[in-house]
Amino acid sequence: MLGVPKKYALVSGTGEADTSLAAFDAALIDAGIGDCNLVELSSILPPNAEEDDLPELPPGSIVPAVVAKAVGRGLVSSCICVGRLESGLGIVSERAATDSAETVRRLAKRDVEEMARLRGEKLVEVRTVTASTEPEDAEWAAAVAAVVFWG
Amino acid sequence: MLGVPKKYALVSGTGEADTSLAAFDAALIDAGIGDCNLVELSSILPPNAEEDDLPELPPGSIVPAVVAKAVGRGLVSSCICVGRLESGLGIVSERAATDSAETVRRLAKRDVEEMARLRGEKLVEVRTVTASTEPEDAEWAAAVAAVVFWG
Amino acid sequence: MLGVPKKYALVSGTGEADTSLAAFDAALIDAGIGDCNLVELSSILPPNAEEDDLPELPPGSIVPAVVAKAVGRGLVSSCICVGRLESGLGIVSERAATDSAETVRRLAKRDVEEMARLRGEKLVEVRTVTASTEPEDAEWAAAVAAVVFWG
Repeated sequence: MLGVPKKYALVSGTGEADTSLAAFDAALIDAGIGDCNLVELSSILPPNAEEDDLPELPPGSIVPAVVAKAVGRGLVSSCICVGRLESGLGIVSERAATDSAETVRRLAKRDVEEMARLRGEKLVEVRTVTASTEPEDAEWAAAVAAVVFWG
Repeated sequence: MLGVPKKYALVSGTGEADTSLAAFDAALIDAGIGDCNLVELSSILPPNAEEDDLPELPPGSIVPAVVAKAVGRGLVSSCICVGRLESGLGIVSERAATDSAETVRRLAKRDVEEMARLRGEKLVEVRTVTASTEPEDAEWAAAVAAVVFWG
Repeated sequence: MLGVPKKYALVSGTGEADTSLAAFDAALIDAGIGDCNLVELSSILPPNAEEDDLPELPPGSIVPAVVAKAVGRGLVSSCICVGRLESGLGIVSERAATDSAETVRRLAKRDVEEMARLRGEKLVEVRTVTASTEPEDAEWAAAVAAVVFWG
């Protein structure tokens, strides 16, 4: 009843601030989605959805997205992994942790490989988008990776 | 602004896999909603919504749902309880735990009874849908119960 | 793809019950949104959105909202803070804790101040809505503050 997205973009960003929520906000701004009202989805790319550059979304738009979000006082990393199946369907995993970029990327890829195996399908393409940072001038850091849908 | 659902289905499923996210995905596939983009709702059935069989939802559809989700390395159980009030409104509770089917069902029913009492209304019908499993051939298991809306 | 809200209301409520979920439900009823299917958003007021009284929403409506939710067996408090920037955009923070109204209000205001600072903008208006309670005749208490969108 809420439609099938036609377009998507993979985005990522990092930020820091003196409160955890503001650090998350800073990471969303860095990712280009700070002025959106994100609605979180579980995690499928429609077979015919096209990847595109993020358009100018009107401020305050309600925007569906799959979001990996890490917020902490030390190293934080987030990764979105998108796997295209032979059927055209895309499967999406998200991982966020107070850990390294390499770790979340490895975990997110393993999720997608396992999800493809479960479906008895081969992966024809696997992509990741990762964000990783640690606080330098503020108390909290945040790393965000997301698939944003529109159209 | 996002509408009032006209139809709903109660679904459940279990799955297992070598990552927690893939086990959840396996349970969603088993429940018939693995190719949807679920948006989680808090938990009311409109008075005139009709129960129906889950239709063929286009892959990647954004689908509103109330979801009870349990993922773990041992026994996991999820339950959705739907209570119809005399007014026609349906109230929904969701419970998920690393515990038995009996436990989550008992807790979910108690929630609905308490929600009806708070509203000063009698329950004219109470239904539950429960999923329960434990891992056999993989590291992680997941049990999902959901009310899915469309129409 | 899901639109830009034209109207919003700030609401709050408290409740208590013998299960945590029913206490949350009681607080939603007290806030006037107990018969809605809330979809949670991250947290922007569109520049032209107008504040208004909450309308009669059809029971079971899917209603986007930013929600601060505290549920516990002792003192619980929730606060939503809305800051209007010079650009017209509104930024929203939500805080919920097993702590006092003063604490969540202070934290939520600090979030909004920090979010404005990050954006390099001045706050032209800051408002908060807070709910706080503790259980008296039941086991669980809940406090909810929310921005509800429609139109």
